[in-house]
Amino acid sequence: MRNFKTVGIIAKHGDTRLAPTLAALTTFLRARGLTPLLDASADGLVPDEALHEREAIARRCDLAIVVGGDGTLLNAARSLACCEVPLVGINLGRLGFLADISPEEMAPRLDEILAGDYIEEPRALLQAEITGGEEGPGDCYDALNDVVLHICSDVRMIEFDIRIDGRFVSSQRADGLVIATPTGSTAYALSGGGPILSPSLPAVVLVPICPHTLTSRPLVVAASSCIEISLSAHNTAPAQVAFDGQSCRLVQPDEVIRIRQKEKPLRLLHPNTYDHFHILRAKLHWGEQP
Amino acid sequence: MRNFKTVGIIAKHGDTRLAPTLAALTTFLRARGLTPLLDASADGLVPDEALHEREAIARRCDLAIVVGGDGTLLNAARSLACCEVPLVGINLGRLGFLADISPEEMAPRLDEILAGDYIEEPRALLQAEITGGEEGPGDCYDALNDVVLHICSDVRMIEFDIRIDGRFVSSQRADGLVIATPTGSTAYALSGGGPILSPSLPAVVLVPICPHTLTSRPLVVAASSCIEISLSAHNTAPAQVAFDGQSCRLVQPDEVIRIRQKEKPLRLLHPNTYDHFHILRAKLHWGEQP
Amino acid sequence: MRNFKTVGIIAKHGDTRLAPTLAALTTFLRARGLTPLLDASADGLVPDEALHEREAIARRCDLAIVVGGDGTLLNAARSLACCEVPLVGINLGRLGFLADISPEEMAPRLDEILAGDYIEEPRALLQAEITGGEEGPGDCYDALNDVVLHICSDVRMIEFDIRIDGRFVSSQRADGLVIATPTGSTAYALSGGGPILSPSLPAVVLVPICPHTLTSRPLVVAASSCIEISLSAHNTAPAQVAFDGQSCRLVQPDEVIRIRQKEKPLRLLHPNTYDHFHILRAKLHWGEQP
Amino acid sequence: MRNFKTVGIIAKHGDTRLAPTLAALTTFLRARGLTPLLDASADGLVPDEALHEREAIARRCDLAIVVGGDGTLLNAARSLACCEVPLVGINLGRLGFLADISPEEMAPRLDEILAGDYIEEPRALLQAEITGGEEGPGDCYDALNDVVLHICSDVRMIEFDIRIDGRFVSSQRADGLVIATPTGSTAYALSGGGPILSPSLPAVVLVPICPHTLTSRPLVVAASSCIEISLSAHNTAPAQVAFDGQSCRLVQPDEVIRIRQKEKPLRLLHPNTYDHFHILRAKLHWGEQP
Repeated sequence: MRNFKTVGIIAKHGDTRLAPTLAALTTFLRARGLTPLLDASADGLVPDEALHEREAIARRCDLAIVVGGDGTLLNAARSLACCEVPLVGINLGRLGFLADISPEEMAPRLDEILAGDYIEEPRALLQAEITGGEEGPGDCYDALNDVVLHICSDVRMIEFDIRIDGRFVSSQRADGLVIATPTGSTAYALSGGGPILSPSLPAVVLVPICPHTLTSRPLVVAASSCIEISLSAHNTAPAQVAFDGQSCRLVQPDEVIRIRQKEKPLRLLHPNTYDHFHILRAKLHWGEQP
Repeated sequence: MRNFKTVGIIAKHGDTRLAPTLAALTTFLRARGLTPLLDASADGLVPDEALHEREAIARRCDLAIVVGGDGTLLNAARSLACCEVPLVGINLGRLGFLADISPEEMAPRLDEILAGDYIEEPRALLQAEITGGEEGPGDCYDALNDVVLHICSDVRMIEFDIRIDGRFVSSQRADGLVIATPTGSTAYALSGGGPILSPSLPAVVLVPICPHTLTSRPLVVAASSCIEISLSAHNTAPAQVAFDGQSCRLVQPDEVIRIRQKEKPLRLLHPNTYDHFHILRAKLHWGEQP
Repeated sequence: MRNFKTVGIIAKHGDTRLAPTLAALTTFLRARGLTPLLDASADGLVPDEALHEREAIARRCDLAIVVGGDGTLLNAARSLACCEVPLVGINLGRLGFLADISPEEMAPRLDEILAGDYIEEPRALLQAEITGGEEGPGDCYDALNDVVLHICSDVRMIEFDIRIDGRFVSSQRADGLVIATPTGSTAYALSGGGPILSPSLPAVVLVPICPHTLTSRPLVVAASSCIEISLSAHNTAPAQVAFDGQSCRLVQPDEVIRIRQKEKPLRLLHPNTYDHFHILRAKLHWGEQP
Repeated sequence: MRNFKTVGIIAKHGDTRLAPTLAALTTFLRARGLTPLLDASADGLVPDEALHEREAIARRCDLAIVVGGDGTLLNAARSLACCEVPLVGINLGRLGFLADISPEEMAPRLDEILAGDYIEEPRALLQAEITGGEEGPGDCYDALNDVVLHICSDVRMIEFDIRIDGRFVSSQRADGLVIATPTGSTAYALSGGGPILSPSLPAVVLVPICPHTLTSRPLVVAASSCIEISLSAHNTAPAQVAFDGQSCRLVQPDEVIRIRQKEKPLRLLHPNTYDHFHILRAKLHWGEQP
């Protein structure tokens, strides 16, 4: 029990279905002599004070247990990106790619994790900096799954230019562009026709959404790349950029979205029985070995 | 010259690049003893009075020549759908799927067409009726290419149910759904991964946009089908529906979009050298016969 | 019971798992005063005498019950194409697209069908005629699912030309080309990226397999079309053509494969509860209505 | 001129169109005081003596100039994989992904390269070891583009199991499976629906060909992975495995194909103007920056 002394609990905000699991979790932790710190504002656009509270909790924790689903864990990962506190996810409902412990097996799996018997998996995050003109540092946003440029409140394609490490790649007319981490490659990027990347692969995938040019294809580049996206000079449709599909902002014609991998990855903990391919098979109905 | 006595000209509104072609076209028609009727409001959301004027022109014409591109012809086709006046398209810039006469060959091609030497191709239109509750007939919209249900000013998937001829097909979580005519199968539906339908095929294709369920596939159904789309009971993201990507409106949770083929097709005229496969090869870079 | 007096049973050849179902089926039919005629050679390349026997049975039947799976029914459909005898399929193992009655519900469903309470669905077949040079009529082959041109014992792409109704469509370099009926659109064509066609749609879909030209797309054309495929003049890789994936032959450089819809469709019977969309949802894991 | 003293020339075997380019190249090299060593057996299945001769040439060279196209360079890369001699490609006909110097600009580009003014790009190769049972080391094959498991002389799907680093990934029924390097990601894997990988990305992509399970997707894994493919216990269709689409052998039911990245990459030289994205745009018709 020496690994984690203070344990934070981050739960999906306002979901009453979580109550029994949260109660069981609190009892479980207290029975093991741990004092849980509870935050219940993980989902949606968190108000500033809640965010500060959550960060305060995270800074005092050695481990954060996220209760909800992949969406809750995505949200927690972004807001705790700075803290280097490891996360483990309890899924409610269906097995998640990230939250992979079911409430039924919560006690034995957490006992193992608290005893130091777990797999720690670093998961890369992206940072998008949006700048316009020459006026210094821009707004920064984090994403664990993806940064998505997309049409907004209109039905026309947007036109944008892609540059990688300063080199022009292509001008595209499309509904949008997904820039996804390996973690995000099984989320929206997959719906857009992208490949599945191994969680630890040092790579990022660019997936065009409904590209006008039929030969446009997903592009897998080094995670160390600097990816720059800007609206084309003759683009006329409004565009927005979203982070993990949970928050978004409009993009102005003269802005540049500069996407890089964050220096420090998320520390995601799994039970020792964790098998990424098993989760893929289960979630994608691939069928098991005969 | 007995086929067409009165000839309307419909041009892309406010595009000064059209002026030389419009002047040449007017001169050409007058030289052949025809009095052209000019309408220059084809593109964008046409104000009511302009639409009425265009319809008035269309009712007095035996032939409408559309100058601009496929977008201009789409717009004209929708607003003239009621009149049964045949359309022929002069493309400016690139070869179009619909507007297939270049300004350079305008005179000889139109001479042939005026002499009755042409191919008349009926192109099916769709009509979408949007109703909510029981309050009688709903709003009606026409489309030559496609009716598209799509996410709107948000980054979350929408959830919707599809019914065909009263039978439940599927519930989908996706960015949207394209319901396209054969004409529209080479437009947005193609970017979404749909097949190419022969222009005269009595069929409609439903193409899901970025579906969450990876086994969702384009569905080709009889043009006589009644396709009903409604937002699912637990959908929370705002949705809109667009017609040929040129006009759109929001969809309310209790509304049903009911899509049927219009009784009367567009009468599209082509020069006798028209070859649909040649246009496909040219526009999709398929390469010519070796 | 007036509808069907003589009932043939066609079973998958040499599959001992069928024995209990065949015994139950025979008992069931005898108990209703019908004398079943059994043929157990449906699968694989049927020897000539067996084929003759099966045709002889088919000619004496008012109804043929096929026991096995979709593969068995495909085979039976091709060999009985000439007889116009209606077919109904008992699936062993998993639900099929064609064989949709499970052994468990065989008795009540067949009672309904024998009483005239069923859905008769015509399913189009294709006929491929392969001719070389000028020497008269060529070899003819039937297919219920698809005619597939494919590379053979080699790893190089083949090059071939497509013509529809005498018009050149395209020259392709690819692993192959599937020409599928609506019935076949949920089989191999679907694996190749093709759309799903409504069973009754008068259409055929051409799906290129791994085309070198990335803009090649599935093409849906009228079922009345004459589709001609021939190897390109500079093709060097060996090619074969297969029918329903169950029989095949080599294609010579100077041969033309001419594919048309057969005049008479298969008469496929279903229980009155048949719902094509339900089968699609079940087999493609689309999920049911919430 | 100090960089390369002895220069080998490797040309496509038996292609008379190469003669003028080979003559010009020989004259060019002699004029610069270099003695070219010519090998003209690069393509096809090279007889053993020719292979030995080529390796003997390669061992004596500081630089090998490959004249032909991407196919010729692929072949040369495999046969010279052991020698660490850098390769540069002169394309005849169309721009290649690998052979990127045209005959017209051969002299100035080679002058730059001989003067040390070039980009050296390491391109990973794969090695496939095929073993059966316990009898020691198996047969080894190299590939610069891809190792492809595929159906062979039959029209039925094959069934195979995939393991990565000892972990079971999935059992698939498909026409085949492509395991491609970044170099190969723009070749056959692209036709099969795979993504484009940056040339230097330490990754390998697995692309299923016409998979029966529609949720099968391209999988991008670390280049350091050990990928094991074996036919499933109940597979019945014959299968073959091909290397760069240029050589192949049958696979027996009890054999395992074990694919790893080769320790030493190909040393590919480019002119200093080389821009991978420019080649992608040119070959995929992406269009240039407006």
